[in-house]
Amino acid sequence: MKIRRLSSGDQDFQEALADVLAWDLSEDSRVDQIAKEIILKVRAAGDAAVLGYTEELDGLTVDSVGELEISAEELQAALAQVDDDQRRALEGAAERIRSYHQQQLQDSWEFTDPHGNQLGQRVTALDRVGVYVPGGQASYPSSVLMTLIPAKVAGVEELIVTVPTPNGERNTTVLAALAVAGADRVFTVGGAQAIAALAYGTESIPRVDKIVGPGGAFVAAAKKQVFGQVGIDLIAGPSEVCIIADKTANAEWTAWDLFSQAEHDADAQAILISDSPELLAAVHEHMSEALPKLKRAEIAAASLQDRGALIQVEDMAEAVQVANQIAPEHLELHVAEPEALLPEIKHAGAIFCGSASGESFGDYVAGPSHVLPTFGTARFASPLGVYDFQKRSSVIKLSDEGAAVLADLAVTLAESEGLEAHARAAALRASQN
Amino acid sequence: MKIRRLSSGDQDFQEALADVLAWDLSEDSRVDQIAKEIILKVRAAGDAAVLGYTEELDGLTVDSVGELEISAEELQAALAQVDDDQRRALEGAAERIRSYHQQQLQDSWEFTDPHGNQLGQRVTALDRVGVYVPGGQASYPSSVLMTLIPAKVAGVEELIVTVPTPNGERNTTVLAALAVAGADRVFTVGGAQAIAALAYGTESIPRVDKIVGPGGAFVAAAKKQVFGQVGIDLIAGPSEVCIIADKTANAEWTAWDLFSQAEHDADAQAILISDSPELLAAVHEHMSEALPKLKRAEIAAASLQDRGALIQVEDMAEAVQVANQIAPEHLELHVAEPEALLPEIKHAGAIFCGSASGESFGDYVAGPSHVLPTFGTARFASPLGVYDFQKRSSVIKLSDEGAAVLADLAVTLAESEGLEAHARAAALRASQN
Repeated sequence: MKIRRLSSGDQDFQEALADVLAWDLSEDSRVDQIAKEIILKVRAAGDAAVLGYTEELDGLTVDSVGELEISAEELQAALAQVDDDQRRALEGAAERIRSYHQQQLQDSWEFTDPHGNQLGQRVTALDRVGVYVPGGQASYPSSVLMTLIPAKVAGVEELIVTVPTPNGERNTTVLAALAVAGADRVFTVGGAQAIAALAYGTESIPRVDKIVGPGGAFVAAAKKQVFGQVGIDLIAGPSEVCIIADKTANAEWTAWDLFSQAEHDADAQAILISDSPELLAAVHEHMSEALPKLKRAEIAAASLQDRGALIQVEDMAEAVQVANQIAPEHLELHVAEPEALLPEIKHAGAIFCGSASGESFGDYVAGPSHVLPTFGTARFASPLGVYDFQKRSSVIKLSDEGAAVLADLAVTLAESEGLEAHARAAALRASQN
Repeated sequence: MKIRRLSSGDQDFQEALADVLAWDLSEDSRVDQIAKEIILKVRAAGDAAVLGYTEELDGLTVDSVGELEISAEELQAALAQVDDDQRRALEGAAERIRSYHQQQLQDSWEFTDPHGNQLGQRVTALDRVGVYVPGGQASYPSSVLMTLIPAKVAGVEELIVTVPTPNGERNTTVLAALAVAGADRVFTVGGAQAIAALAYGTESIPRVDKIVGPGGAFVAAAKKQVFGQVGIDLIAGPSEVCIIADKTANAEWTAWDLFSQAEHDADAQAILISDSPELLAAVHEHMSEALPKLKRAEIAAASLQDRGALIQVEDMAEAVQVANQIAPEHLELHVAEPEALLPEIKHAGAIFCGSASGESFGDYVAGPSHVLPTFGTARFASPLGVYDFQKRSSVIKLSDEGAAVLADLAVTLAESEGLEAHARAAALRASQN
């Protein structure tokens, strides 16, 4: 097994770490240009453009976008078709995801200031949200639950899903998950054309207020381009795990948690940081032994070789420092006292505390969404959550007396900015009293 | 005074309204291309590129970026220089903005499920935020307070401000506002070069985690391009007000509130919706009389002619419907019972209830940030707030028993997705018990 081995004591450690983390998010101009053309065409020609691209890019020929819609009955039929264990697992996971996200609901509030002015914030759900579900290899039923359920909990009225079905091949488990999660309408459209249709609407596909969900390069480019016309979630990069382990960690579990990340795709990143040379060696041994036998051995080997690393550090303080620098999507703390490290962790999408808490549980059933900030964006971004599907309006209700009191300050500031009408509008309210 | 007059009873009302609202947010390719080049150069050449662009675009020649930094002493000196009324107004407004935003602070939380698994959400402040403050005509001290104070309340450790000073001209009141708001470092750099420097860092300007604040076309294009590398707030469009007024409204106040918007710039939008022909006529008369005497008459006249409208509707229900369609940045309810309308309002950045609550108060001193979603983005976006400067991490701490219980579901789902290592990592935790 090939994987980089770094030590924080090395002179070139920072350069070597930067090299491990290197990933060019900057867009490909050609992809950008094609996405732009697709968006313009779908804006201009609506359904006809969607049909053309679906034929050209997904090899799917139909007469109308209506034929691309999957009915509620078809979703229910898919749910009836999956075996009992799968259905139970989908419904059990959905229930846990639902109850976690209910904790995230935010309420409106208001207060009255000493002058009788009422000030507040009204929190309401978005009307209509578009969810992009990838097709093909990266089409995961778990992602359907993890994106749709937070929106449902927020109270979004209508969830419009697009999922490409290249050559018409539908993934039954994905459709079953859409039934469980409560998708309102589902269109088998993919790529930049799906993003354009959701952002601007066509004759058959309704315009949405926000688009969430991961996709390939064209989807990412299109989402960035329609941002402003609609809301979008983060642009997703490859998935990552960073594990901090001390000598008490279970080497076998740690090895499989690293594999869990590496098996996703060749760009996925799995990093282990430890102050224990013995643990690092034991994990390395477990991995070397198990890797060749993995079903997805080729993908995992490529991921570990190109983007993985085993990092030796001096102590746990240094381990946390390196993890904060990485700002990983998933951070596992396989240490004797995870609570002692927690306050020092600055940036991570999800933090898994203790050896029992493998990332795999977070991917499926723990409760929080597995749609998390990648590529260091945990410095400023949050897991997908109910807050992504709620919006706020400030509410200002001044009393007559309150307006008179505030007018004095407002007039001074307005005049200093040379805005006469602003000053006058405030002053008029004061003169009333 | 020229302003469009629409009636919801007209056959072509929807077309006429669409025409009033038309605004092309889609980017100018030339601006995009120039912004892209500037970003690439600043990434590659750092300080040297910043100095070059500052000389070329702002006519400001210095030897080092250090000379472009405004020291804390200079900010304090500016504060000492503004007159007493202005200082009192800045500090009074700051205090009100601070106390409103303290209500927005979000706390971490956790709960324990029936299997002893602890699940939660950790809320922390961003480390370092960049605030873009426009220079020249649109350089408003109030905007300094409205962007920096929510970040301060959130607990952001370091606020890096960039403000262009074309030809070296500094705005004393803006500097005084930066002192009041607590800016940590201030650089007199503007345009796409400021955004690039904040996003990637240079030798002298520290890299930030998120960039907020409005700017011109190049700033907007650059922000969109660095999104992902750093967080950004919304791309700002022209400012708008929509007033719903019934026959009880004060026509003079309403007229001045419309002027408050129209005097901003020629692209600003002021719309009045009423079920009372008398009120519409009275407002029109007030405006026609006052407009020629306005200091910014030319700007206001252009705004009203190109983008303003007086809209006659049948009743208040229809007024609300039209307002929801507009999803305005500012919505004023000059009606007898604003509370009765409030539950029907779906989209608005800030809602001003009752005739006393002119938008001008919200621009300066009411408390909520005046940085609000424009151009219909209130459908999915919120006012700038403390939540823009806090981020969340999911926290998952499974008990041994809890992991064993969850493993069953996780294994089933992982297997259905063909992810062997995910299944194995979960199963290993179960076999432990």
